[in-house]
Order: sequence, then C-alpha cells, then structure tokens
Amino acid sequence: MSKTYELLSQIVTPTDLHKLTDKELLQLAGEVRQAIIDNVSRTGGHFSSNLGTVELTVALYAAYSMPPDKVVWDTGHQAYPHKLLTGRLPRFDSLRMHKGLSGFLKRSEHELDHFGAGHAGTAISAALGFAAARDRQGLDERVVAVTGDAAICAGMSWEALNHAGEMGTDITVVLNDNRMSIAPNVGALTSYFTRLRSRPTIQNWAHRAKELIERVPGPAPRIAAGLRHGFTHYFAPEETGTIFEEMGFEYIGPVDGHDLPGLLEIFRNLRQVRGPVFVHAITVKGKGYELSEDDSRKWHGVTPFDSETGEVPKKSSGPVQYTKAFGDAIVEMAKDDPRVVAITAAMPDGTGLNKFAETYPDRYYDTGIAEQHAVTFAAGLAAGGMKPFCTIYSTFLQRGFDQVLHDVAIQHLPVRFAMDRAGIVGADGPTHHGAFDVSYLSFIPGFALLAPRDTTEMREMLFFMKDYDKGPIAIRYPRGTTPENLPEGRTPIEFGKAEAMGSPSELEPVVTIAALGSMVETAWEAAMQLAAEGLGVQVVNARWAKPIDFDEIFGQAAETGNLLTIEENARNGGFGQMVRDEMVERGLSVKHTLMALPDRFIDHGDQKRLLAENGLGLEDVKSAIKELVKSRR
Amino acid sequence: MSKTYELLSQIVTPTDLHKLTDKELLQLAGEVRQAIIDNVSRTGGHFSSNLGTVELTVALYAAYSMPPDKVVWDTGHQAYPHKLLTGRLPRFDSLRMHKGLSGFLKRSEHELDHFGAGHAGTAISAALGFAAARDRQGLDERVVAVTGDAAICAGMSWEALNHAGEMGTDITVVLNDNRMSIAPNVGALTSYFTRLRSRPTIQNWAHRAKELIERVPGPAPRIAAGLRHGFTHYFAPEETGTIFEEMGFEYIGPVDGHDLPGLLEIFRNLRQVRGPVFVHAITVKGKGYELSEDDSRKWHGVTPFDSETGEVPKKSSGPVQYTKAFGDAIVEMAKDDPRVVAITAAMPDGTGLNKFAETYPDRYYDTGIAEQHAVTFAAGLAAGGMKPFCTIYSTFLQRGFDQVLHDVAIQHLPVRFAMDRAGIVGADGPTHHGAFDVSYLSFIPGFALLAPRDTTEMREMLFFMKDYDKGPIAIRYPRGTTPENLPEGRTPIEFGKAEAMGSPSELEPVVTIAALGSMVETAWEAAMQLAAEGLGVQVVNARWAKPIDFDEIFGQAAETGNLLTIEENARNGGFGQMVRDEMVERGLSVKHTLMALPDRFIDHGDQKRLLAENGLGLEDVKSAIKELVKSRR
Repeated sequence: MSKTYELLSQIVTPTDLHKLTDKELLQLAGEVRQAIIDNVSRTGGHFSSNLGTVELTVALYAAYSMPPDKVVWDTGHQAYPHKLLTGRLPRFDSLRMHKGLSGFLKRSEHELDHFGAGHAGTAISAALGFAAARDRQGLDERVVAVTGDAAICAGMSWEALNHAGEMGTDITVVLNDNRMSIAPNVGALTSYFTRLRSRPTIQNWAHRAKELIERVPGPAPRIAAGLRHGFTHYFAPEETGTIFEEMGFEYIGPVDGHDLPGLLEIFRNLRQVRGPVFVHAITVKGKGYELSEDDSRKWHGVTPFDSETGEVPKKSSGPVQYTKAFGDAIVEMAKDDPRVVAITAAMPDGTGLNKFAETYPDRYYDTGIAEQHAVTFAAGLAAGGMKPFCTIYSTFLQRGFDQVLHDVAIQHLPVRFAMDRAGIVGADGPTHHGAFDVSYLSFIPGFALLAPRDTTEMREMLFFMKDYDKGPIAIRYPRGTTPENLPEGRTPIEFGKAEAMGSPSELEPVVTIAALGSMVETAWEAAMQLAAEGLGVQVVNARWAKPIDFDEIFGQAAETGNLLTIEENARNGGFGQMVRDEMVERGLSVKHTLMALPDRFIDHGDQKRLLAENGLGLEDVKSAIKELVKSRR
Repeated sequence: MSKTYELLSQIVTPTDLHKLTDKELLQLAGEVRQAIIDNVSRTGGHFSSNLGTVELTVALYAAYSMPPDKVVWDTGHQAYPHKLLTGRLPRFDSLRMHKGLSGFLKRSEHELDHFGAGHAGTAISAALGFAAARDRQGLDERVVAVTGDAAICAGMSWEALNHAGEMGTDITVVLNDNRMSIAPNVGALTSYFTRLRSRPTIQNWAHRAKELIERVPGPAPRIAAGLRHGFTHYFAPEETGTIFEEMGFEYIGPVDGHDLPGLLEIFRNLRQVRGPVFVHAITVKGKGYELSEDDSRKWHGVTPFDSETGEVPKKSSGPVQYTKAFGDAIVEMAKDDPRVVAITAAMPDGTGLNKFAETYPDRYYDTGIAEQHAVTFAAGLAAGGMKPFCTIYSTFLQRGFDQVLHDVAIQHLPVRFAMDRAGIVGADGPTHHGAFDVSYLSFIPGFALLAPRDTTEMREMLFFMKDYDKGPIAIRYPRGTTPENLPEGRTPIEFGKAEAMGSPSELEPVVTIAALGSMVETAWEAAMQLAAEGLGVQVVNARWAKPIDFDEIFGQAAETGNLLTIEENARNGGFGQMVRDEMVERGLSVKHTLMALPDRFIDHGDQKRLLAENGLGLEDVKSAIKELVKSRR
C-alpha cells in the first residue's frame, strides 16, 4: 500500500496522463483507488460509487484531451477519481469539510469541473448543451457525459437522449452501470439492463474497430458516419436493436468497466468516432475494497472508518434522528390504517422508509430517481382513495414542483408530503440544502405546511396528516437529531394552530419569538439564556407555515410589542415575510425582526457552523433580541 | 349533417354505449365529430387533436365499463369526445367560456374526469396510481391511460413507463400517435415511431387473439400471463422487440385509430388481458374535416370560424402581440450577435420563435415537451459560451423549476428565460395561468427578473438581457397585446432600476403606485381617471421584480405617504410582499395597499373579467386608491 502516491502526486491536469505508459496507468489507477480509501476513511463521503469509477476515469482522461475535451459527470458523487486526476490530491483530505473540497463537482472549484451536479440525471442535457455550443462555434472538441444506471432512469435523461438522438451531433454517453445507485435499483429498465449485461462482454473489439476504420478511406467524420450502422451490429449481434440504438445512438457494450487496457482501447478509438455513441460499462460498486464490494449499499455514503478493518467508531446512542422517527411513525400509522401507502424516489434508507418497506412491501413504492412521476403517481393513489405519504427530501421535491402544483394542488388531492433534510444539510452543500421549500410551497393555493419542533411533535403531526383529507399537506423536518431541551407540556395538533410555549422564566416577557420547526430549539435556548440575564422572552412554536396562526402570533406580540420570527428557509417567500405582510395588513404597531436564510447559496460544511455563518446561530438570536429591546418603543 | 345528434343526445354516461349496436356506434362517432365541428367553430378551442380521438374514445367507452373502469386522458385537449360521451353535449356550447365547460378535464366538473391535465405527460403516472389503489383495495376495474406522441416524450412519461413495467400490474397505455402534437414533433423517438408505423397495420388481429385466449385453459389472468410473450411476437413479428416491450409492456400495434370496428375488437379483447399493455394507435389530426387534415398545426387551437368554408372572420389589425414582439426581437438580436441561440419546448408558434427557426435554423433548438431538459440544455449552452434564450411559458417553466435552481442558478449561468403567458391567460384556465413565476423565481439567489410595461419596453429589456452575462435572468410578459395608452417618454433599461413615470396630471400626487409589468397599464389608466376626479396619482413602473428598485419606490412613496403595489402574480412570495418586507425593514411610515392575485386557483374565462373578479380590475385599483387617501395620515 503506497501512501506516497508515486504517480498520482505528479498529476496536475488530465493531459499529464498522456505521458504515462499503459502499464503506468494501471499503477495510477491503483493509487487513485488507494487515495480514495485512505482519505474517505478519514473524512467520510461517498465511497463505493467512487471506487467503481476509477478505471473509467483513468481511461477517459488518458484517451481524451482535457481541455478542450469535456467530461460531464452526472451526480458528482462518482467523481472523486476526477478530482484526484485534476490536481486536487493535496486538498483531498479536506473533502466535504467546511471551506474544503466539495463532495460534488463545482464549476467554481475547478475549471475542469465543467458542470456541477448534486441532483441526478442532468449530465446528458448539459453535455448536449456543450456539444451544441461547440458546433455553433466550429470548435474541435469531444464531449462525454458519464451517467449512472439510476440517474438514467430520471425522466430528464430520457428527454436528453431523445433530443441527442435527433440532433445527431458528436456526443458520447457512458453509462456507469453498477446495478444499483444507492439502494438496489428498481424499474423495468433495470431488468432490461440485466438482459443487456447477460450478453458476452466485448473483448478486443476496439482493436477490430480500429482496423475497420483504417480500411475505409476518406476523412474521419465520413468514415464514422459510414460505419455507424455497421458498428452496432458488429458489436451487438445478439439483438437487432437496443433501446439506445432505437433512439439514434450507437450502442457499444457491455464493456467491463474495470478492464483498464480494454477501456483505453475503446475510448482511444471512440474519440475518433462521430455522432451519438452510447457506451455501456459494467462496474462494481465498491470495487477493490472487499467489504464495500460485499455491501455497497451500506458503503454508499460513509462516516470515517478504519481503512484496515472497515470498522466504524461506535457513536454513543444519542438523541433520536428525525429520519428514524418518521420511519417508525409511518409503520405505526400503516398498522392502524390500511389506506396508508408510502412512496420514495430511490431513497428507502435516506428517508427511513426501509422498515416500512420490510413490514408492508405491498404498500411501498420505490419509483427510482423519478420525483415527477412519484408525485403524480401519489396523486393518482390519492384520487383512488389511498392515503399516500410521498417521502422526498426537500431539495429533491423541487424536481416534482410542477406535479405538486398541477397534479396535486389544483385538484385538491390529499397527498401527504414528508420532506426530510429541510434546511441546512451540512456536508452535501448548496445542491442539497433544503432552503426553499416553505417558499416554493406556500404560494400554492390550498396547500398546508407543517414544521415540528422535535420528533415527538413530528409523530403527532404525521398522525394529523394521515387523517387530514381536505387537500395536499406537507411536513418539513431537518437532517439530524431531535432537540432534547424543550419543555414537554404539549398541546394537540390542530389545523392552523400554533403552540404557545410561554417563557422559560417568570420574568415579564418583553419579546415574542415565533419560531418555525427546527428553529424552535434555538429560540427556546436563547430565551433561557436571556432569562439568566434578566430578559423575559416568550416563544411561539409556529407549527404551521401555512396557514399561519396569525392570531396567536400577533396576540402574543401585542403583549410584548416586539416580535422576532425565525426560520431555516430563504427569506423571500418564507414564513417571516408572510407574517410581516399580515402584520402590516392588520395595521399592528409591533416591531418585527425577521430572521431567515440570506439570499445567497450556502456552501457545504458543518450544519451548526453554517447556520451561525448565515445569521441563524444562537448568538445571532440573542443579539437580535437585545437589539429589539434596546430600541423598544 | 345532423345537427340533432340523434344518438349522441341520448348518451348520458359511457355505459349507454353498451346498448348500441356496432353500426349505431359508427353513427355515434359521426355525430361526435359533427358536434365538435359545429361547436368549436363557434366557441374556438382545441380542434384537430379532438377530431383525431373520436373513434378511439367511442371504442374505449363501448368496450370498457365506466364506472368502475377509469380512463385517464393526457392533456385534456384530446378529450372533447370524452366530454360529449359523458353527458356534456347540452353544455358543450359553453366550452372554454366564463363559467362554462373547461377546455380540459377537470375533476370538479365531472365524476368521470378522473384526472385533470393541462400540462402534458401526466396520464401514465396518474393511471398507475389508480391501478395501485385498485390493487390495494382488491377492486375489479380496468385502468387505461391515453397519451400522445408528444406527451410520451416528456420525461415523466418515461419514469412512469419504467415503474409500470416493473410493477407489472394491469394497466393499458394507449398511444394516440398523430405524428405531431402541436407543431411537427421532434426527437429521436419520433423517427422511431415512424419506423414502427411502417409496419403493416394489424388487421383482424383481435379476432385471432380471442381465439388464442379461448384455446388456452385456465382463469383469465393466467391465460394472459401465459400468452404475454407470445402476444407481442405474434403481432409484431417484424422486430424482436420494441422499446415498450423492453420496458415490460405488451406492444400492440400499430392499429388504425379511425377503424372503429377494428378498435372495438381490440379493446373488447384487451379488457380481458392482464399486465401492462401498450396500444399504439395511428390517428390523423383533424380527421374528418378536410381543411384541418391538411394543416393540423394551424387548426390545433382555433378561434371561431365558419364550419362550412373554414374561414376565420378577419380581425382588424390591432395592437402588436407580446408573442410577436418577442419573435421579432430575437431575430433582430440574433442578427447582431452570433452567440444568440433559442430553445423551445415544443412551442415554436406559441412562443413566436417560428420566425427565428426559419431564419436561423442552426441556432434554434426544439426539445419537444421536455422543459427539464430544455433548461439544463440551455445551461450547458451558456456554460459553453452561448447566449441561450430559453423560451417557455410561465406555467410550463414550472416543469423545469429544479433545473432553473440547481443547474442554472447555483452555477450562476447566464441563461435568459423568456416567459410568455405570465399572469391570467384566459380560456385555458387554472392549469395554464402564469400566476406564480415571480414567486417561484424571486427566492432563487442571484436571479434577476424583469417585467415590461409594453412591447416597446420588452424589446429593450430583451436587448439588455442579451448583454447581461452575470447570471440567470428572466422576463415575464402576458398573453395578449401591448397597451397603447402609455406615455412614450422612456428611460433606458438599467439593472435594478425602476422607471418613474410620474403623474398624468399636474395635480399634487397623493398616492404612489408601484406597478409590475402588465399592471402598469391599469395603474396608469386609474391615475388618468382619478386625475379627472381631482386626485393626483404618480406611477412607478417597477420593471424589476428582482432586484426591486426599493430606493425609487420608497423615494416616491415618501412624498405621497401612500403606496399601492400591484402585480399579476400570487400574493405569497410576490412583488408586493417583498416590497412590504423591505418597507418594514427600513422602518418607513408609509401606508401600503398590496394588490395581487388571491390565494386560490383561478378558473378559465375572459382575461379582463377574471382580473376584475380577482381584485385586479381598473375599478378595484381606483377604489383602493380612494380608500388609501380617505384614511390618509
């Protein structure tokens, strides 16, 4: 095991790979793999998918010339080898850390990060855009999209294939088919891929292809065009057509995605080929690290572990996670009510639905990475009399926004949305923060939106949602664990009613905080700490972001004359702005401080630290309260 | 030509078709077609697509039992025959009129409108939801989705096919393939469908299929399962597999979608078949009305015309349409700047891009109904150095919302969005009103959003956008024609700067109106009329919904002490709420009346009337101003 990375440490830019012999490239691939194991075991991160793309990346970068060639990676979490081969080894130990390397591709991080991606399915569209821009400018560069077998099931991948097949321009789509993205893959296409995989792997085909090309006279583009049809049928004799051929691509595959010499031959030849080409590479998630090959789902995203033994340092059993509390509650609800069904878009583990899936397999639907379909499918289930819980992260529900509005809300269908990862998510960064759901749902007529202060309240809200049949309703809850320092006296969940939590002290309250969901903890903590400083603060747990309990909030604010609203959501279109609107509408003379996420994209890093850096830390709240009181009327 | 509709007038519910002989069904189909011609020539509406589905609908409804069977129509504009066969003949002359029948399906309009749709691609998802709900409840009902050759290219259709093929439950998808949806269809799939269509049309196959089924012993589901593989290969011998087979469907086709006896046989048999079935029906858009068969694009959506001659009453040439002004401007910009390219999602005519497409075919991209891909493709073009204008109706851009946020905005890519049909669109109703774009774009960090007061200003804004390279920027403009009563004195477009239009009179202004885009006309008209009543009103043309020119607005409002904001967008997350937020933030003591679309979905009808019914009419503005002044501080 070489921790010195003899060759890798020399690579500053992908064209450096051109100086290496094929034998050295093999060594380099080994070093890339080792660097991932060495570093991710310390930093945590996406693990097994990146071990699967080592040879693919080395082969692509040795065969292509970057720049000017462009490789667009779908969902950055298969792109650690790309990071290592673009000179980022020295900073690789800062992966996903605050101010460190992003866990995904990022245009602002490196000029060869051509297109960032956190949500799946975007690469073919983006690559086709690059290809069209190249064509317009008459440039000579190759464009490659690397997508995955889960990402390609996202509808936009199909839209892009359809467009690319028609345009007929030069673009190579590499399908990194590891048979599962995060959880085992679902959908008819998966079994289709399996049938394709059962065909004999192409051996030495590139060599033969080269011979073919060399025998045909004329300039390269014409050659390739002339060969187009023959190519496919030469290498895929078992079937007269694959889906991808029928959409206008040359289909090359399946190829062994870990056979570096084979891949080098293929890509060196393909760089000469014109038109849309589809390369189907079979990879093994977790390749080269035995434990993760055996259980790639467990090893998809990891916390730090011992790279020798694979052991993960045990955490002391802390407070309950929101995700787990949701998973427990939906099993419990399903037991009570046979109409409860649950939908996930490829995230059974991340959403906590795995227990439900085991307990009620017939009532569990995994659509794959297909949020649009997931939402409208849920709408159909609701119209058919079921009680669907559509369980999608806040950031991913953006994909189904039109379906939420057009298929669910316009028809007043009682789909229940459970949005995990609302607010700042931490290490995954700007593509994954759930910073906008209050804004993108609260202007939808007839929509109801809940946010719990802790997991106990979340459970009660979920049961409320189960019995709420008047229209769409959503609950947003954060990544992480429940607060444990909140008072236990609770009132039942009622439609549109906030919870008056009162004050942690006997002091006369001089400020009212109306806090939404995850921010109740901070509000209460601030109230407690300020009580110690002699300042009385009362807290309203807003519970509902829509409809907002204005009467309760303004009733309390009228007593103190000072109102602070706080939410872990963008300011525009958020809770505070709606409160402020109504406050003016009612002509109230209350001073109002509005605390929300600022109008900028927020980087990756530690959740608490990011909140503090963006004005939502405990100290910020305390200062804001003092400021309110200082200038008290 | 029977205007009495002898049989059709007897049909109250689809099961009434079961009482008719096949010969009578033929007559019924003729009457349905005639009713569409008679009525749509008077009311206007979607014409040629509905003439194409007459026989399909008659055959489906004669073969299936509704209720309990369910037919889900993709995009309601192929569903006029459905309306006529569900007892809505007596009200059919109110189609698309205010308080009349909707032009689309609508759950609240009829119990057999199982699932509404204005945006394309939703039917398979919804139908699969119904099918899953049926399975959960152990019900015996058939579920059919009817989609179109354009709608099936929308990504969510593929997501749904993928899921349906895996679930394997009973669902029949009928592809109404008329070779073009609105404009000639695009994409690789279109040529794929053409290849499928070239296969011999199935004749009498249903009869033979029935024989096959009858020969195999055992209960129906087992029979069908046993036949599954054979079925396809029996009827589609020319190819070993179609895309749909590879996704787990039985593929039946192509079938002649106007051969009623053939269709009746097919669907009567198919109702017995279990598992996912895909029926590929070839129809002719405009079938049975010669003029529209010849030019179905022109006859897709029509205004009233003479049903005998096809003549459309000539309009006097009125003010210029926003759509046309956009179409002219982008041609002009492209002439100046070779980096200007344009993207549409299947709407070359509706967006005004047809002229651009003719003039600069190499710089024009029609993605088909694929807004998600269109947006990320535009992002790729921008990243590749182009100046893409992504031209999508306000309501349809909702489909690309995540791509706008995740692929464009997070990466600060200068994609230019041109959003036609912002605000109330009229007869198309709630699925098509562009009521939300200010709300769904203004919380996106770094996004800039313009709204012009007239087409002259729109042109200037578009040129500004062309040269704006700092990040994403959008312009919203309404359906309809430019106002002509606004003053001509103009100031150049500057980033984040409003236009102070002043007052139409010499009176001392006592109220300031800050109006956004389409509402400037109403604001100015109100100011003029109130001047006649001795009331001075000054108008600020906001121009920017983000960033808002607070200094100009509040500077003027400070003079009058009274501010009225008005916008043709939802209140939550809209322009007025952002103004109000900042007003409180600055501690201004200005009275503010906020006028925006109310928090409810708005029905179809005449644009002006709908605005007035929803509080945005001229009289509403005048009353609001008087109210403001009455209680003046």
